[in-house]
Amino acid sequence: MLRTHTCGELRLDDVNKNVTLSGWVHKVRDKGGMIWVDLRDRYGVTQLAFDESKTAKEIIDIVRSLGREFVIRTSGSVLERYSKNDKIQTGDIEIEVSEIEILNASNVPPFTIEDNTDGGDELRMKYRYLDIRRNPVRKNLELRHKMLQQTRNYLDLKNFMEIETPFLIKSTPEGARDFIVPSRVNQGEFYALPQSPQTFKQLLMVSGIDRYFQIVKCFRDEDLRADRQPEFTQIDCEMSFIDREDILNTFEGLTVHLFDKVMGYKLENVERMTYDHAMKNYGNDKPDTRFEMLFVELNDVAKGKGFKVFDDSELVVGICAAGCAHYSRKQLYALTDYVRKPQIGAKGLVYVKCNEDGTFKSSVDKFYNQEDLKKWTDKMNANPGDLLLILSGVTDQIRGALSELRLKIGEDLGLKNKDEFKALWVLDFPLLEWDEDSQRFHAMHHPFTSPKPDDLEKLSSDPGSVKANAYDLVINGVEIGGGSIRIHNKELQQQMFKALGFTDDEAKKQFGFLMDAFEYGAPPHGGIAFGFDRLCAMFGGSDSIRDYIAFPKNNSGRDVMIDSPSTISKEQLDELGLDLKD
Amino acid sequence: MLRTHTCGELRLDDVNKNVTLSGWVHKVRDKGGMIWVDLRDRYGVTQLAFDESKTAKEIIDIVRSLGREFVIRTSGSVLERYSKNDKIQTGDIEIEVSEIEILNASNVPPFTIEDNTDGGDELRMKYRYLDIRRNPVRKNLELRHKMLQQTRNYLDLKNFMEIETPFLIKSTPEGARDFIVPSRVNQGEFYALPQSPQTFKQLLMVSGIDRYFQIVKCFRDEDLRADRQPEFTQIDCEMSFIDREDILNTFEGLTVHLFDKVMGYKLENVERMTYDHAMKNYGNDKPDTRFEMLFVELNDVAKGKGFKVFDDSELVVGICAAGCAHYSRKQLYALTDYVRKPQIGAKGLVYVKCNEDGTFKSSVDKFYNQEDLKKWTDKMNANPGDLLLILSGVTDQIRGALSELRLKIGEDLGLKNKDEFKALWVLDFPLLEWDEDSQRFHAMHHPFTSPKPDDLEKLSSDPGSVKANAYDLVINGVEIGGGSIRIHNKELQQQMFKALGFTDDEAKKQFGFLMDAFEYGAPPHGGIAFGFDRLCAMFGGSDSIRDYIAFPKNNSGRDVMIDSPSTISKEQLDELGLDLKD
Repeated sequence: MLRTHTCGELRLDDVNKNVTLSGWVHKVRDKGGMIWVDLRDRYGVTQLAFDESKTAKEIIDIVRSLGREFVIRTSGSVLERYSKNDKIQTGDIEIEVSEIEILNASNVPPFTIEDNTDGGDELRMKYRYLDIRRNPVRKNLELRHKMLQQTRNYLDLKNFMEIETPFLIKSTPEGARDFIVPSRVNQGEFYALPQSPQTFKQLLMVSGIDRYFQIVKCFRDEDLRADRQPEFTQIDCEMSFIDREDILNTFEGLTVHLFDKVMGYKLENVERMTYDHAMKNYGNDKPDTRFEMLFVELNDVAKGKGFKVFDDSELVVGICAAGCAHYSRKQLYALTDYVRKPQIGAKGLVYVKCNEDGTFKSSVDKFYNQEDLKKWTDKMNANPGDLLLILSGVTDQIRGALSELRLKIGEDLGLKNKDEFKALWVLDFPLLEWDEDSQRFHAMHHPFTSPKPDDLEKLSSDPGSVKANAYDLVINGVEIGGGSIRIHNKELQQQMFKALGFTDDEAKKQFGFLMDAFEYGAPPHGGIAFGFDRLCAMFGGSDSIRDYIAFPKNNSGRDVMIDSPSTISKEQLDELGLDLKD
Repeated sequence: MLRTHTCGELRLDDVNKNVTLSGWVHKVRDKGGMIWVDLRDRYGVTQLAFDESKTAKEIIDIVRSLGREFVIRTSGSVLERYSKNDKIQTGDIEIEVSEIEILNASNVPPFTIEDNTDGGDELRMKYRYLDIRRNPVRKNLELRHKMLQQTRNYLDLKNFMEIETPFLIKSTPEGARDFIVPSRVNQGEFYALPQSPQTFKQLLMVSGIDRYFQIVKCFRDEDLRADRQPEFTQIDCEMSFIDREDILNTFEGLTVHLFDKVMGYKLENVERMTYDHAMKNYGNDKPDTRFEMLFVELNDVAKGKGFKVFDDSELVVGICAAGCAHYSRKQLYALTDYVRKPQIGAKGLVYVKCNEDGTFKSSVDKFYNQEDLKKWTDKMNANPGDLLLILSGVTDQIRGALSELRLKIGEDLGLKNKDEFKALWVLDFPLLEWDEDSQRFHAMHHPFTSPKPDDLEKLSSDPGSVKANAYDLVINGVEIGGGSIRIHNKELQQQMFKALGFTDDEAKKQFGFLMDAFEYGAPPHGGIAFGFDRLCAMFGGSDSIRDYIAFPKNNSGRDVMIDSPSTISKEQLDELGLDLKD
């Protein structure tokens, strides 16, 4: 037997027991006469004590040979500690060792196995198996484990059936790029890895499985931005004989359940907001609603006073930063620099300080008198001591820029409370978005999303104005999940493909099986998918999904630990009927 | 709201309630004056009743327009039925319909949606989404759902951590053929899809995650035999700081748990048997132990009497078919033909009938007198009325042939009780097997399996005789799972690769990351993987795994429903830097 207990288990109640522990040598303290070893495993740390005067020389020799991260087995008796350590759960006891065996030696690890390690990102990725020994990384994986179990518990209780959909499917170039898999048996033909089980879960609805779920790996061959992974996990769900309300309630329920069971956090009622409202008030379709600082549009009070910048702008819009009237010239310059960064894209920043004495000081005093500015501050409900920050330009672009500024000010003012979670549904997205490059419409969500019934007839006359019966779940400004009521009717699906610029042949070749299925009694249905990596990161209080994936890839899609992708043999290529291009 | 209840839910207690149901039109019976419609969903069937004299004409018109598999929504009031139907759970009630709406029409389905359908295999695969509407297929998926949940419940309770390992990994040509995935970002390089998460779960052990599990898709690009799938699911587990006993107990526990929770079946104690014992007594490393009929070797009593066939054979071995002495000449001929089939490969069959009067009648009476035959029957513990069936030849081959015969006789005599489950562990497999084609040893399990400690030194001197610390779980003659205690030491792993004919460079290129990891404190560890598709099929009482997979592929690895694999565009190939060979 390699152990009777784990290293996180022994307490005062166990004193005098003979126990066997196995684990890693975390630290050795040799005071001459007394040696202590901290023995570590997944569950905790237990102190081993060796009194040189009482312990066999062979044992002491072994102890003196131990290095960091050696794996040992040890037996002995549990003693109450003289000086207790309340920082660890086993801090009341130690083991007086009578036997010790080295199970495996270890090279000196390339970084310290401590909560705050000295290893850089690259090194820790290469030796990920050592990185996972560190408490923070292991705890992230433990959190993920809990999230997995609790998600399934909830969905199982709600009668969802877990069904595994295939990984070797068919390439459908709509949307992101597929990873493809050459077929050896059918040379010249290829499978693709799924970007999501979308069509299969819809087929399951046609099959009468009215509640489906799966926690499943999905694949996208994108040029990787920071914090994207070529393979990622989603909680994928679909329901039939439902309307939007049923879906929102069911998955609000899941979200509340997860916060409760995994975090012990009581999530408040989930707010609802249309896409149009979110864009107008937050400039963003995933607003962080932990704080207000809503947009106020100022066209009526700011234009026509001779300030050309505003007069020539489609939209003049501002936010009120409460209590910031004291911002120095330097701070205001910094904010101006911030909004002028290319990725933000504003031309400049107009401010108005609401002085405590009721007067105003603005960067556009040349064009606006106190009375003019009073109209602005009234409209924005500003109080003495507040600071108005105002941008102007083309509507979509300037809303985006002001959204960034709002989030920055929120951060600066400490309004993004890390211990608070605010969830909301964003509803009624546009169905289509115009793509300048390809000069055609793209589906904002995907081609299976149904238009709002009232907008159906605009699908041919004014496609860009059609709203989708789609919804996103947003928490603290992060999109956690999204879905829609689907099209379940062949004619409408054909119309949709047409709007997206598919020829009938293309639509049939790629999605004929789904449209065929719609002709055999497809029920009304809809669903949702949650980005599981992102959800775990949010629960763990991190921005990085990589910390919540056991073996992530780097930003070039490379696994630096196993060194993959890598070359394969000529025989393998030959068998697949492939040549590398020169 | 599309429904207030499902079609399997309403009972006498619900009489007089107003309800809304949605589902598929299963059957319409139009008796003129009265029309009944069976409405079906995942949960059951409910009868809708339409009395022409009391029902609005619009409703009757709609009902008369319904075809099979139309999707409808209907509202009405629950009535007690006049003539009850005890074959369905809702058979006490029916719905007097006041509203009906067709949600979607249906073409006439290509086969009947009944438990016994008129659709052939090919057709049902093509329209799998209709096949799943049938009760038997849906029940298979429900069984699989339960197996998934119960497996995780057990492992979670036992402190196993569910950790997702990557799908885009590295090609390692040892073992079966990999599916490969070209990298676009790193042209000329390839990922491979995992044949199992073997190396990753071992790295997790090095990481200190002492109990890992995952229910995970794996991939093998094999020439498909019947009932193999290119993608399949396994329950994958690994533990550290354990010996074999811990693993056997833990996964015996899982098996007992699944039989109990999913089937309500109390599995008896799981037997244990060495590989050598299984081969000697059953001629098979996955014996069906629901019945005995053990092999008895007869060399000492059958050789040296002038029967050249036996005298020239390495092994003479028989089984005793209890109560079969009455077999006719025709039946015995049929058995002889059976063992002579090329896939069985015996040259002939010798029989001995134990007559009720104590005499014997054999097919070799020319060579053996009654006294000789008495020795055989004594050795085989045969009773009057029994039939001995004896084969001879080269040991390995003839054991295999007799195993097939034993299974056939067991089947013929009804000894394979479908309601009985007998599980056993087969232990101590050979570590290596000689491959004539490549003239080198292959790992019988995989290259990470550790030799039994006592056999370590034979690894260089007599590799073929080394036993592995490996174990298979066999139920009713089917291999359900297998695993081993792993090598956790770099030197031994190198020695193992050497025995398998790897050069140091090859070993390093393919598995260097694992051997590196072994140098940083790898704990003793071992694990197991269960074939989940097979396990589900066994629980469902079927031989075919395909029935337990929602969207299986056919024997050419093709998904005939979505028509995959398929060609891809030249642009896609160009982006990947690939050409098709001419």
